[in-house]
Amino acid sequence: MTTALAARIARDYGTPAVVIDMERVARNIARVQDLCDRVGLANRPHIKTHKSPLLAQMQVEAGARGITCQKLGEAEVMAEAGLDDILISYNLLGEEKMARLGRLLRGTGVTVAADNPTVVAGLARAAALAERSLPVVVECDTGRKRAGVEMPAEAVTLARAIAATPGLSFAGLMLYPTEDGWPQAQRFLDAATAGLHDAGLAPAIVSTGGSPNLPHLGELKGATEHRPGTYIFNDRMQVAAGVAGWDDCALTVYATVVSRAARNRGILDAGSKTLTADTGGLDGFGSILDYPQARISGFAEEHGFLDLSRSPTQPQVGEVVRIVPNHVCVVVNMVDELVMVRDEEIVGTLPVAARGRLR
Amino acid sequence: MTTALAARIARDYGTPAVVIDMERVARNIARVQDLCDRVGLANRPHIKTHKSPLLAQMQVEAGARGITCQKLGEAEVMAEAGLDDILISYNLLGEEKMARLGRLLRGTGVTVAADNPTVVAGLARAAALAERSLPVVVECDTGRKRAGVEMPAEAVTLARAIAATPGLSFAGLMLYPTEDGWPQAQRFLDAATAGLHDAGLAPAIVSTGGSPNLPHLGELKGATEHRPGTYIFNDRMQVAAGVAGWDDCALTVYATVVSRAARNRGILDAGSKTLTADTGGLDGFGSILDYPQARISGFAEEHGFLDLSRSPTQPQVGEVVRIVPNHVCVVVNMVDELVMVRDEEIVGTLPVAARGRLR
Repeated sequence: MTTALAARIARDYGTPAVVIDMERVARNIARVQDLCDRVGLANRPHIKTHKSPLLAQMQVEAGARGITCQKLGEAEVMAEAGLDDILISYNLLGEEKMARLGRLLRGTGVTVAADNPTVVAGLARAAALAERSLPVVVECDTGRKRAGVEMPAEAVTLARAIAATPGLSFAGLMLYPTEDGWPQAQRFLDAATAGLHDAGLAPAIVSTGGSPNLPHLGELKGATEHRPGTYIFNDRMQVAAGVAGWDDCALTVYATVVSRAARNRGILDAGSKTLTADTGGLDGFGSILDYPQARISGFAEEHGFLDLSRSPTQPQVGEVVRIVPNHVCVVVNMVDELVMVRDEEIVGTLPVAARGRLR
Repeated sequence: MTTALAARIARDYGTPAVVIDMERVARNIARVQDLCDRVGLANRPHIKTHKSPLLAQMQVEAGARGITCQKLGEAEVMAEAGLDDILISYNLLGEEKMARLGRLLRGTGVTVAADNPTVVAGLARAAALAERSLPVVVECDTGRKRAGVEMPAEAVTLARAIAATPGLSFAGLMLYPTEDGWPQAQRFLDAATAGLHDAGLAPAIVSTGGSPNLPHLGELKGATEHRPGTYIFNDRMQVAAGVAGWDDCALTVYATVVSRAARNRGILDAGSKTLTADTGGLDGFGSILDYPQARISGFAEEHGFLDLSRSPTQPQVGEVVRIVPNHVCVVVNMVDELVMVRDEEIVGTLPVAARGRLR
């Protein structure tokens, strides 16, 4: 059955619509801020999840130290809206980006990450353009095999290179431990810190990341801050990881059942161009709150394939259902605006201001 | 080695950049138009691939009968830019969409699809609002199990319902055969056409779809038009399906190698928020033209994981590489603009005007 709120959303905006519950958003922000406060870590939320200056402001007002952006273009949008103290947790490269980073640095507190000497050498140009010192953290890999130096000695060497580069200052270390890799992260950090001490370089920042890592906050001795992203909305992956319950999921996709060509299947008007093909390692592409036994079994670009064979009740054509997506960060990135609701009432829309800022 | 064009794109726009070669675009448009002309089918290209009125105009100027859109919002953008004769190949539902469809129908030639009586009943409202007859094709499923009635008799029943609904006219049948399902489609069509004949309803349109189906054009007796989408750009899936070669791939993603933390791996600045997690059933997430033995083995949102273990040559940090994505339609949908090039020179940017029009 279509809920009263779902009917209003369909009437006012049409479907598919990506909807956030502002009360849950506020509760999620408060809960994680409180967690950081209790363990004595600065909270530097990652805005890649929401890409909205308004939500970033809510995070800062709740006590966040600053924010984290993955892309320079995201940081530009946030700075334009008045956010300050921005960590760009990414290797930035190339003269086009250095010119933009220089402009950004002139008016905004920015720290950037680097994991190799080519990036460090390039960053000097941005600092020179801004006529302002640029703090740089060394990205360290502690098992994720993404970006990051693999060995503590490399971190020390790169920190020395940063400190020796005109215009740059060594700011600390950035880690993103795997969920079971916190002991490994501790070993890396201890070795790197010892080496940095010998080099006369103390890491002012030791930053960890990840909402699935929230249960580990406080475990890493020497950590100074955490960069959680997904927690503001949560999703099916966070529920599966045990760090959120369904009632903590603040974002749902409202979709209409547009076809029921056979008894045990149906089609939703949300496909891979809304929910994305990102499974997050889970079975199916989202949980339908109204039909928990239904399965979103596959996608075309604008069709969600509904397998109803195990669902004791079945939606009719025209019914609007609510879906918790597997991975909320990539879903927000598909849409230009979110619909905000509170207490089952529509509040208005929120532009995803930094959507598509992939550079 | 970064090509001269890649260096210019990185300098002028930064990476990742989604780039289209306008000469290849024109060649792809001409080739498929010629194919349709030769077999005597109208060409009604699907704009879901490019979402650009300018490219749709090129298709129409080359001889396309009209265009196909998947979403009402896409059709609105195309109509606003002057495109006419638009098939919306989708079940449209709900009062918000009927109001918009009515407005669209007032000024533009529109045909819509339906596969169930709920949709047909709703469409009458749009026709009434427009004070103009709305042609409706019946969507038929011939094995894909997406939308579409499953049985020829259902198609006839629905056609009768359309013809009996004030404001609607029965326009024909819409099919999307699977690549090996053309004999099945013929059986469906023959049975449905016989039933329609008995009902005094001739299908003026019999529309088939799909670029991977281009080798089958002309096989279906009774078909009047085809709706190819991907052919304008092509991608790794089309190459794998044998319907395009690498030189027919008009769209490439230019990405920078931002990290080389270990001997056999690297990181690209294009992750799932650029290339998407849509594998298209292929191994890896794209082909790197400059390093054909390298593999894009995984993603974070803004990181492409590069497995270089089988690559005899390896890119350095800072190098810009060119990637043919697995599924081009979903990649275009990630970005606000494409960079156009011709003869290795940058022409300018093209807005993806209907990007994000998911409603």
